[in-house]
Amino acid sequence: MISPILEELIKAFCRLPGVGPRSAQRMALYLLSRDRAGGRLLGEQLQRAMMLIKHCRICRTFCEHEQCQICTNPNRDQSLVCIVEMPADQLIIERAGFKGLYFVLHGRISPLDGIGPEELGLTQFMRHLQQHPVAEIILATNSTVEGEATAHYIAQLVRSLDIKCTKIAHGVPMGSELDYLDPTTVGLALAERRAPN
Amino acid sequence: MISPILEELIKAFCRLPGVGPRSAQRMALYLLSRDRAGGRLLGEQLQRAMMLIKHCRICRTFCEHEQCQICTNPNRDQSLVCIVEMPADQLIIERAGFKGLYFVLHGRISPLDGIGPEELGLTQFMRHLQQHPVAEIILATNSTVEGEATAHYIAQLVRSLDIKCTKIAHGVPMGSELDYLDPTTVGLALAERRAPN
Repeated sequence: MISPILEELIKAFCRLPGVGPRSAQRMALYLLSRDRAGGRLLGEQLQRAMMLIKHCRICRTFCEHEQCQICTNPNRDQSLVCIVEMPADQLIIERAGFKGLYFVLHGRISPLDGIGPEELGLTQFMRHLQQHPVAEIILATNSTVEGEATAHYIAQLVRSLDIKCTKIAHGVPMGSELDYLDPTTVGLALAERRAPN
Repeated sequence: MISPILEELIKAFCRLPGVGPRSAQRMALYLLSRDRAGGRLLGEQLQRAMMLIKHCRICRTFCEHEQCQICTNPNRDQSLVCIVEMPADQLIIERAGFKGLYFVLHGRISPLDGIGPEELGLTQFMRHLQQHPVAEIILATNSTVEGEATAHYIAQLVRSLDIKCTKIAHGVPMGSELDYLDPTTVGLALAERRAPN
């Protein structure tokens, strides 16, 4: 007994991550009641982004041109490449102040899902590295079983090119209390101890 | 250093209620990575809904035609009209099994914000009631100061038309424990006590 167009809109909102039927209804009714301009804007931006955003030819991050703003920026440190799983990981590393280049896998190695080095663009990336050698590759995949396996695989590949390969450090997150951490993290923090500043 | 189109999309998502910059980024990246069809669909449905959804001429609920599916349904109880503040309130009353008609205020009386009877469509509604008399008007505004004031105002208006006017009951919500309720609610539940079924 609700307007069919409104019902379709609520259903479309439900496809967003973390949005259930109740939040979807709230979003749709809010836009209709209070912010139709915002609704139209979101509609336009969605159409535009889904159509125009592709992958950077070099680093595979989201980008509307052939190459992204980082790959084409001469002020970035061209000797460092940080490999991440997803564009969201790139954004957080960027915010941490990293000044080098990136390579975005858009996934992790997962043979059961049919995701191998080809799907992650690694074959193409290795070819690119041979033509544009770098000083160091930093592995920043997630600290999960699949992420670690992917990092291990890439480290093997890079070894054949004679490029230095490092992995971001494990340890205690800033601001956290030791007795809330899991023993594996504390164990790694102990093993990777260093001289205090 | 992020794609400008992606940045615009994230900003547009931030206009949704309950969506901050982090959720907005998650939604945009999710659609780009995993569900471009869903993103296009949401974009289309937003454009369509913002353009086509208007108010029902009779009851003012959201509707893409002149009159809504409830106002034009001959099987609804034409002798009952339930007055609610927002379309979301109508949906929850509908789900509770109400079979009569509705009138949606799209707000509440608030002189400081310049919202009076005219803005809530009450003048037009009173004219409609004179031509299409009903047996009972049920007030289901929110149990807030403004909601109660609005209910009180409408009750006064309806009195002049000699139509029975009721208000939905206050009391203990189903499944709740008494000692978690506020004293006002418990006081009203006591005052409005009735014979057990």
